[in-house]
Amino acid sequence: MRILVLGGDGYLGWPTAMYLSAHGHEVGVLDSAVRRQYDHELGSESLVPIESLRTRVQAWQEVSGEQIAVFHGDLTDADFAYDAIRAFAPESIVHFAEQRAAPYSMIDRKHAVYTQTNNIVGTLNVMYAIGELDRDIHLVKLGTMGEYGTPNIDIEEGWLEVTHNGRSDRVLYPKRPGSFYHLSKVHDSHNLEFGCRIWGLRVTDLNQGIVYGQQTEQTALDPRLATRLDYDAVFGTVLNRFAIQAVLGLPLSVYGAGTQTRAVLDIRDTVECIRLACENPAEQGEFRVFNQATESFSLLEMAKVVANSFDGPVEIQHIDNPRVEIEDHHYRFTHTALESLGLEPHLLSETLFRSMFPIIAQHRDRVDLDLLEPTVRWRESLRSRTS
Amino acid sequence: MRILVLGGDGYLGWPTAMYLSAHGHEVGVLDSAVRRQYDHELGSESLVPIESLRTRVQAWQEVSGEQIAVFHGDLTDADFAYDAIRAFAPESIVHFAEQRAAPYSMIDRKHAVYTQTNNIVGTLNVMYAIGELDRDIHLVKLGTMGEYGTPNIDIEEGWLEVTHNGRSDRVLYPKRPGSFYHLSKVHDSHNLEFGCRIWGLRVTDLNQGIVYGQQTEQTALDPRLATRLDYDAVFGTVLNRFAIQAVLGLPLSVYGAGTQTRAVLDIRDTVECIRLACENPAEQGEFRVFNQATESFSLLEMAKVVANSFDGPVEIQHIDNPRVEIEDHHYRFTHTALESLGLEPHLLSETLFRSMFPIIAQHRDRVDLDLLEPTVRWRESLRSRTS
Repeated sequence: MRILVLGGDGYLGWPTAMYLSAHGHEVGVLDSAVRRQYDHELGSESLVPIESLRTRVQAWQEVSGEQIAVFHGDLTDADFAYDAIRAFAPESIVHFAEQRAAPYSMIDRKHAVYTQTNNIVGTLNVMYAIGELDRDIHLVKLGTMGEYGTPNIDIEEGWLEVTHNGRSDRVLYPKRPGSFYHLSKVHDSHNLEFGCRIWGLRVTDLNQGIVYGQQTEQTALDPRLATRLDYDAVFGTVLNRFAIQAVLGLPLSVYGAGTQTRAVLDIRDTVECIRLACENPAEQGEFRVFNQATESFSLLEMAKVVANSFDGPVEIQHIDNPRVEIEDHHYRFTHTALESLGLEPHLLSETLFRSMFPIIAQHRDRVDLDLLEPTVRWRESLRSRTS
Repeated sequence: MRILVLGGDGYLGWPTAMYLSAHGHEVGVLDSAVRRQYDHELGSESLVPIESLRTRVQAWQEVSGEQIAVFHGDLTDADFAYDAIRAFAPESIVHFAEQRAAPYSMIDRKHAVYTQTNNIVGTLNVMYAIGELDRDIHLVKLGTMGEYGTPNIDIEEGWLEVTHNGRSDRVLYPKRPGSFYHLSKVHDSHNLEFGCRIWGLRVTDLNQGIVYGQQTEQTALDPRLATRLDYDAVFGTVLNRFAIQAVLGLPLSVYGAGTQTRAVLDIRDTVECIRLACENPAEQGEFRVFNQATESFSLLEMAKVVANSFDGPVEIQHIDNPRVEIEDHHYRFTHTALESLGLEPHLLSETLFRSMFPIIAQHRDRVDLDLLEPTVRWRESLRSRTS
């Protein structure tokens, strides 16, 4: 199958591109390299050194014998997006190409506006390109479990059966997310569902949990194939950050009470989920939503898993929650769709974290401790900055 | 009360500005004049001649003795938005300043992207300006009943009590609208609700029905105070279009079966609803939603009302529906909030239309018949145009 991976130079996009290539698909990668530019802006860097996309693709060819086509450009440039899709003629498009950090979107007005326009316009351009060039292309779009927020009812996979005043309907699951980034994905989902209705697009919206881990079967083949590992408070995800703090001998910093519960996922399951979604496409006109997460834990539970799996003393520290979020809440979510397609989850276990610690230890000198401190505050961000 | 009307040069913004001024409020109008620019782009024009904003404001001062401050600029320019809000120091901001035509947003990719970025970025800038300058400002935001689409359950005012698997929550009412324009308002609503949660903004989101009529007590005082009356298939709203077709001796063009039901509202109720919302502000942190519509009718029922009230033969013609929408559906919506604040609705009656016919007849020579034909088609628009 011909699969074009948008954002294929990123933390998950790159391992996904290799995984699909290793599974016999013809893969293209489209990326603007803007994720690398955020690093320059923030003064941050991947803990594990990563190669340029050009080197990655060359190394992949040496190691696997497989080619990956590269399209360098920005999806908000419609001409570029159309040209790339026309040239590669994919059967599936996997869309990772969005600004994906909640704290980045909350820095100030400019970052909020940037995140929403970048994500919404990029996705609209992809929708229109599919609609005009080939409506049979299956779009596999990365959303987030964070779109749902923390409702007091169980979270279903994108749709909800509702009865009200004696009548019933199947409605889009109501969303109430916690950042302008998460909101941008809610907006995308609404736009995409409309595209399915009016143009018969076939879309799979993957509401992904927080991903942990840094190695897949493919990234481990050669150091040049490594994917990024972010530890900074803006782009670093919580489990990865805890693992790094453990290795550095720092207390694991839990925001607030730590009773906030989040859905999580092993990076090795991410790549498998994408493969399953591509190989089992949505129907023409179907807006299909999968919850791409396998387990949920409170932040405190996550910290304890990391602490218990680390060979040495680990302190857990509660710090002021920089976010505005409900800390004590119900959390139960359905995640049967991907498992029914064949996903066999890697569950969060000591084993995994044991495997991460040496990777982190090897690069510990690259850590800038200042970057671990959360400086973006949901309530105050707008007061501390000018327009 | 100091009230700044964003989009105060438009069809409803201008009558609202005068109405609030007539009711003792200090009013400012902010507008970019982009609505007048759409006319140049489409070759369309208001059926009733309208004056420049400068002349309108001068005429209003002559007629009423009241001043209206003018801020000319675009809300997507954050510096301008902040400066205007800082200078006027409003207690309420009424936000009409969005691209508001569903067909305009469906012309092609560029118009879809323009509509969503214009509306979302403008609203984000207003939210941030309020958040940074004065969080006590009450934002009265114009949304649309079209945000809801046509669910098979009753439509409530913005929120819905849901019970699922034995648990309950009050959730944002699920939305499933029918154009990229309507979607932009759904996106705004989600962003605004988040602003209420994190910054304690006070927001009233008015989900307005389709407005009919062209005269208010104030516009009728002087021809220079007239507001626009659109009859073209892009910006003209359905009841106004039917009235114009009746006067011109043309068949009333009903899209499809005409069983599609829509919520409607008299223009005189629009201005009163805005006054009631401003004078009864939302609480700090409250995202309050009112359904600003008083009745609902199927398109065919609307055509019959117009036909019956016109003194002469009127034909009703069904034409191919250019939109993608469900024609046969449940429709019942709650609209008690504004009535409980004191709204006394003008109901759709022969009387109103009798009063519109002479206005239309007076300007019938200005009609360009070509503009009445719907040329924007939901399913095909993207095929007939290039990127």
